[in-house]
Amino acid sequence: MSNLPAVAAAIKKSQRLLLCGHVMPDGDSLGSVLALGLGLRWLGKDVTIVSSDPIPELYQFLPGIDTVLVGEVPQQPYDLLVAVDCSVPERLGKALEPVLKSNLPIAVIDHHVNDRPFGQYNYVRTAAAATGEIIMDLLDMLQVPISMELAVNLYTAIVTDTGSFRYENTTSDTHNRAARLLACGIPVARLSNQIFGEQPLASLKLLEVALGTLKVSPCGQIAWLSISQSQIKSVGACEQHIEGLINYPRKIKGVELAIVFRELDERLVKVSFRSKYRVNVNLLAGKFGGGGHVRAAGCTVSGSLDQVQAMVLHEAQELMRGDSGGRHS
Amino acid sequence: MSNLPAVAAAIKKSQRLLLCGHVMPDGDSLGSVLALGLGLRWLGKDVTIVSSDPIPELYQFLPGIDTVLVGEVPQQPYDLLVAVDCSVPERLGKALEPVLKSNLPIAVIDHHVNDRPFGQYNYVRTAAAATGEIIMDLLDMLQVPISMELAVNLYTAIVTDTGSFRYENTTSDTHNRAARLLACGIPVARLSNQIFGEQPLASLKLLEVALGTLKVSPCGQIAWLSISQSQIKSVGACEQHIEGLINYPRKIKGVELAIVFRELDERLVKVSFRSKYRVNVNLLAGKFGGGGHVRAAGCTVSGSLDQVQAMVLHEAQELMRGDSGGRHS
Repeated sequence: MSNLPAVAAAIKKSQRLLLCGHVMPDGDSLGSVLALGLGLRWLGKDVTIVSSDPIPELYQFLPGIDTVLVGEVPQQPYDLLVAVDCSVPERLGKALEPVLKSNLPIAVIDHHVNDRPFGQYNYVRTAAAATGEIIMDLLDMLQVPISMELAVNLYTAIVTDTGSFRYENTTSDTHNRAARLLACGIPVARLSNQIFGEQPLASLKLLEVALGTLKVSPCGQIAWLSISQSQIKSVGACEQHIEGLINYPRKIKGVELAIVFRELDERLVKVSFRSKYRVNVNLLAGKFGGGGHVRAAGCTVSGSLDQVQAMVLHEAQELMRGDSGGRHS
Repeated sequence: MSNLPAVAAAIKKSQRLLLCGHVMPDGDSLGSVLALGLGLRWLGKDVTIVSSDPIPELYQFLPGIDTVLVGEVPQQPYDLLVAVDCSVPERLGKALEPVLKSNLPIAVIDHHVNDRPFGQYNYVRTAAAATGEIIMDLLDMLQVPISMELAVNLYTAIVTDTGSFRYENTTSDTHNRAARLLACGIPVARLSNQIFGEQPLASLKLLEVALGTLKVSPCGQIAWLSISQSQIKSVGACEQHIEGLINYPRKIKGVELAIVFRELDERLVKVSFRSKYRVNVNLLAGKFGGGGHVRAAGCTVSGSLDQVQAMVLHEAQELMRGDSGGRHS
């Protein structure tokens, strides 16, 4: 049964609360768990926040982030575990495994599609753009005023899960909530810069080098970049700077399939795929022993950068032809 | 005197209206002029919309865009010229020059800083994130219902001028307006893809070339790009592909002031400024006869690319020093 007042009541009657978001924490998971944690502390509760995985550098600015314990749950008595933004218990990660095996009651607050949430108390609202939206309602229910610190966390939750109000999940209600959070005086430009805006110079230099390798197939539907070890070294870039590069071939008008070839060593290439509307890249990656989702997948292929590129592009073109029913040559 | 009811009254009593935004039209200029034009047509007015410059391909999806006449004002009687999103008459461009010399009364609706707007009827609200916000109020005042077509134009105006609700100009009120527009049922994800998602190949090629010119000042707070005519030609790019380039130097961690130098011809350079938190770029642009907002401004300076770059960077560094109270050298 999905019931926010029941979750609120369970929280209200508990004094020692353990709060947890999901593995590989993102803005919604962290912003939600921190807003709830800060709110409950304001109510005088004893709050322990645990993350199984480390906090990405990007989110170190979030108010309260220094109170998050990483990797282990302190051995002390708790009255309730509140699991935020997690549809299955496995999403809580390794650190929470012992707790899940104990008899500690669980409250689940989430916005992912889920027929059988795993708590004694559950509230799942799939229409919420972010779990942060639900936390706002819960805090209202608990009569916690939205301080600036809470507002920054809640705004981060919403703005990251909606891609800055651009994704399909963004509703009129989402903007109403943002309006309320901005009225608290949060520094929008500074937050946006921190979350979306800032890049080290090395990452722009890598982008320049990568764009120099940009190619588009004659049919205009496949675009790719390739990055060698020496190129990465020449600009002083590292792993995290490579991540977003696939968005550039993906951005090109008319391109359905974007690929990034990334040399791991002289005989091994990591290949990433993204498709826009039609091509099943999970299938394509599967042909090379990899996998993923329908619109985002990857694989690691033995061979030189040139060899792997030739093999993969051949398969991609085959798939494209099949997909389009022979319309393109 | 700045007076929206007076502008509304002037429009109300006019039957034949000429509407115009600024040269090099952007999302706010076009969205505002189209929303107003469609609204006035709904009221039964005869509306002529003219743009001195061509409409960027990016904005061809806007409802009513096919009714915009490019480059020339039809010779017919008008009762009123409504100039939208323009702080000075020159911003209307060449096509409007004959009209400005005539006795046609002018109504100015704008959100740029402006001590002396050039209309008989003026409404300037610098607190508005976009001129589109003012147009919403004007349409309410004129009792025009916000149809889906109007909502798409108004949303485009707001979302482009706020960088998807990320810039400092974004207020609680901006989100309240977005909430109202989304309640009209506009397809947010599709619009976002159209506005922010897709780029022609030439624009990525120009990005590569531009990133090759990226420089950062020794203090790490000023970053700039320069683009020559020959570079633009070499990649087959055009005006509209240059617009977003300033975001790249702006993105660099630690950079406060971003500048793009763009060679118009051998003796003329267009300079665009963006600042993040502190530097008043309206002041900086003003030193070279230009203007704009506190965080976004521009000017056109006589000289070669190298000459203008040296002059502007000198002034920028001076301003930076003053701004930081001598903390940086």
